[in-house]
Amino acid sequence: MKAIAVYDDGEEPVVIDKPRPEPGAGEALVRTLRVGVDGTDHEVIAGGHGGTPTGEDHIVLGHEAVGVVEDPNDTPFDRGDVVVPTVRRPPNGANEYFARGEPDMAPDGQYHERGIVGAHGFMAEYFTSPAEFLVEVPPSIAEWGFLVEPASITEKALEHAAASRSAFHWDPESALVLGNGSLGLLTVAMLDPDFDRVYCLGRRERPDPTIDVIESLGATYVNSNDTSVSAVPDAHEPMDLVFEATGYAPHAFETIEALAPNGVGALLGVPADWEFEVAGGRLHRELVLHNKALVGSVNSGYEHFEAAVESLAALPESFLTDLVTGIHPLDEFEAAFVDDDTTIKTAVEFTAYEER
Amino acid sequence: MKAIAVYDDGEEPVVIDKPRPEPGAGEALVRTLRVGVDGTDHEVIAGGHGGTPTGEDHIVLGHEAVGVVEDPNDTPFDRGDVVVPTVRRPPNGANEYFARGEPDMAPDGQYHERGIVGAHGFMAEYFTSPAEFLVEVPPSIAEWGFLVEPASITEKALEHAAASRSAFHWDPESALVLGNGSLGLLTVAMLDPDFDRVYCLGRRERPDPTIDVIESLGATYVNSNDTSVSAVPDAHEPMDLVFEATGYAPHAFETIEALAPNGVGALLGVPADWEFEVAGGRLHRELVLHNKALVGSVNSGYEHFEAAVESLAALPESFLTDLVTGIHPLDEFEAAFVDDDTTIKTAVEFTAYEER
Repeated sequence: MKAIAVYDDGEEPVVIDKPRPEPGAGEALVRTLRVGVDGTDHEVIAGGHGGTPTGEDHIVLGHEAVGVVEDPNDTPFDRGDVVVPTVRRPPNGANEYFARGEPDMAPDGQYHERGIVGAHGFMAEYFTSPAEFLVEVPPSIAEWGFLVEPASITEKALEHAAASRSAFHWDPESALVLGNGSLGLLTVAMLDPDFDRVYCLGRRERPDPTIDVIESLGATYVNSNDTSVSAVPDAHEPMDLVFEATGYAPHAFETIEALAPNGVGALLGVPADWEFEVAGGRLHRELVLHNKALVGSVNSGYEHFEAAVESLAALPESFLTDLVTGIHPLDEFEAAFVDDDTTIKTAVEFTAYEER
Repeated sequence: MKAIAVYDDGEEPVVIDKPRPEPGAGEALVRTLRVGVDGTDHEVIAGGHGGTPTGEDHIVLGHEAVGVVEDPNDTPFDRGDVVVPTVRRPPNGANEYFARGEPDMAPDGQYHERGIVGAHGFMAEYFTSPAEFLVEVPPSIAEWGFLVEPASITEKALEHAAASRSAFHWDPESALVLGNGSLGLLTVAMLDPDFDRVYCLGRRERPDPTIDVIESLGATYVNSNDTSVSAVPDAHEPMDLVFEATGYAPHAFETIEALAPNGVGALLGVPADWEFEVAGGRLHRELVLHNKALVGSVNSGYEHFEAAVESLAALPESFLTDLVTGIHPLDEFEAAFVDDDTTIKTAVEFTAYEER
C-alpha cells in the first residue's frame, strides 16, 4: 500500500510502499478516507519531534484521520463503520493513564503519538488500531472526520479550563481566541454557541480568508498589529476565556492581562526556548487579586473525541467548506503541505467516502 | 471602647476611643477576644492599601478576629456563642457575588474588606456584624479562633487548585509551600494529612523557630539560599502542588518548573510592580506539554471559613502553641506588631475567653 512518510535524512514527505498491515487480536483494519495536515506535521517533517519509531529510518505522517472499517476482525465494529483513531498509544503495554482512559495526561515516556513520536501515523491507505482507540463517527460527517482530532484538542482544553472555574459560579460571556490558524478558527466556531461574544486575534491584514471566516461566524477579528493581547480589554473588553493557539510565548503571559476577573486562559501552543522580560510583579498580582487561572493542555482523551464528534456535527456546513481550503488526492499530496496565505486547512484523500 | 487604628497621616497604630457600636437589624454585637496580626496589617499601616473608610481619617485595624456574642439582637446566635467574622462586606447593599455567598470572587469596587479597605476592622473591644458574616466556632478552639481567617485563605486556594485538576484523575502526593511565614506554616500543617510528602521553602538559616515548626510537622525544610524553586525537582522531587505564599513574583513563574506533570500552583502572594526576565518559551511549553496549571486565589468565602474551623480543630495543639509566639494584651499591643526572626504569629487579646 501507499503511505506518506518522512525519512530521518529527508526534508520533504514522500510516498512510499509499505505492506498492508494485518490486524492483531482486538484490532480492526481501517481503510483511510482522509488525513488532515496541521502545524505538528510540519514540525515532524522539520525533525522537531525526533519521533521516528525504534528501528525505523522514517515515520509515516498523519494524526488527524478518518476511515472506514475494512475488516472488523474480532472488534465490535461492523465493516463500513466510519471511525476516527485517537493518537496516543501505550509504548510498552498499558499504563495507568491509558487504563483510566486518560492517555492525554500521561507524562513523557509513557506514550507514543501516532505520526508524531514513536509510532507511525495514519497517512497510508490502511491502518490498524485496537478498538478502544477508534471513535465511531456518523456517516453524515464522514468527509469532515479528519477534523475530529483537532476539535478534540479544543474540547479537552475547554473542559480543563471550565474545571478550573468549577469551584464558584462562572458564567462566561466573552472569549478571545489567540491565533487564526485552523485550530483557532475551529475553536471560534465551537465557542460560538456558548459565548455571547467571541473574538479572534491574528496578524493578517485584510483581505484575508481567515478574517472572512471569523466574520462569517459573527465573531470579531482583532489585528495584533494594531492591538496587543494586553490591550484587548481597553480596545474591546476583558475576556472571561482566552484560548491560546499560537505558540508565541509572550502571549501566554499577556493572556493574564487580557482576562476579566475570575477568567481563565487555556494554553495550547508549544514554543521553543526563549527568554524575555515580563511585567512579572503585575502579572502575579493580577492572577491573585482577580482569581485568574492559566491552564496548559495537550492532546485529548477518548471522551474528548466523542465530544468533538458531537460538536463537529453541530457546526454549520458553510463554515466547514470555508475552513477546508483543499482536499488533495494522494497523487497530488504535496499540495496538502503547502502553507500560504490562501490555505487554511487541508487534507490528503486516500479514498472517497461512499455510504453503504 | 478602645480600638487600635492607624491614621492617614500616622505611621504606627495607636489606641483610640470610639463609641461602642450598636447592632442594627440583623446584626449581632460581638465582644472581641483576640485579633491576629499578619502582613496585610503591616501593609495597611504602611498605607499600601489606602483603604480608610469614606469620610474618616483613620481605619481600625484587624481582619483575623474571634469573639463572643454579647448581644444576639435579632440574629439566630445565643449570647456567649464563639464567632469569627468574615472579612468582605458589600459596599452598597448586596451584589450578585455576596448574594451567591462568594464575596471572595467579587471584583474591585464590589467589596470592602474590614480592616483593610473601605471599612473598619475588628481590633476593638466590640464590633457588630450581620449574622450571615459570622461563623460559629466550637468553644474548644475559641482561643485559636483568630487563625480561622488565615486558614480559610488556604482552604479556598486549595479548593480552587483541586478544582483545576478535577477533569482527570489527580492523586497528589507531594506538596511544596513557598514561604515559611505564618500562613505558609499553617498551610504545611493543613496539607500534612492529605499529602505523603510536604516541603516548605524559606530563606532562613538554622537555628530558626520556623524550621523547627516545619520539622516538628514531619515536613522538609528547603533553604532557598541553597535550592531555588526551579531546582526543587532535582534536589527533592517534582511537586504535585505548589502553594505560593511569598509575594516574591519570580516564584510565581518558577513554580511552573517545580511542578510535576499535571501539577498545579496556587498563587496567593501580592507583589508590587516589577519587570524581570523569564524563560518564557520553556515555561509556556512546560505548562502545555505537561498539563500544568496556575491558579490565583484571594480572600475566602463563608464555606471556606466553615472548612477552616474544621481544619483548625484537627490540628495538633502543639503545632498551634509553636506557631503562636505571642498573645499581647491591649495595653501592650505594640508587641503584636513587632516582626522579627523570633516572631511567627501574634495576636492582640482584648478579652480572655471564659467558657460559660
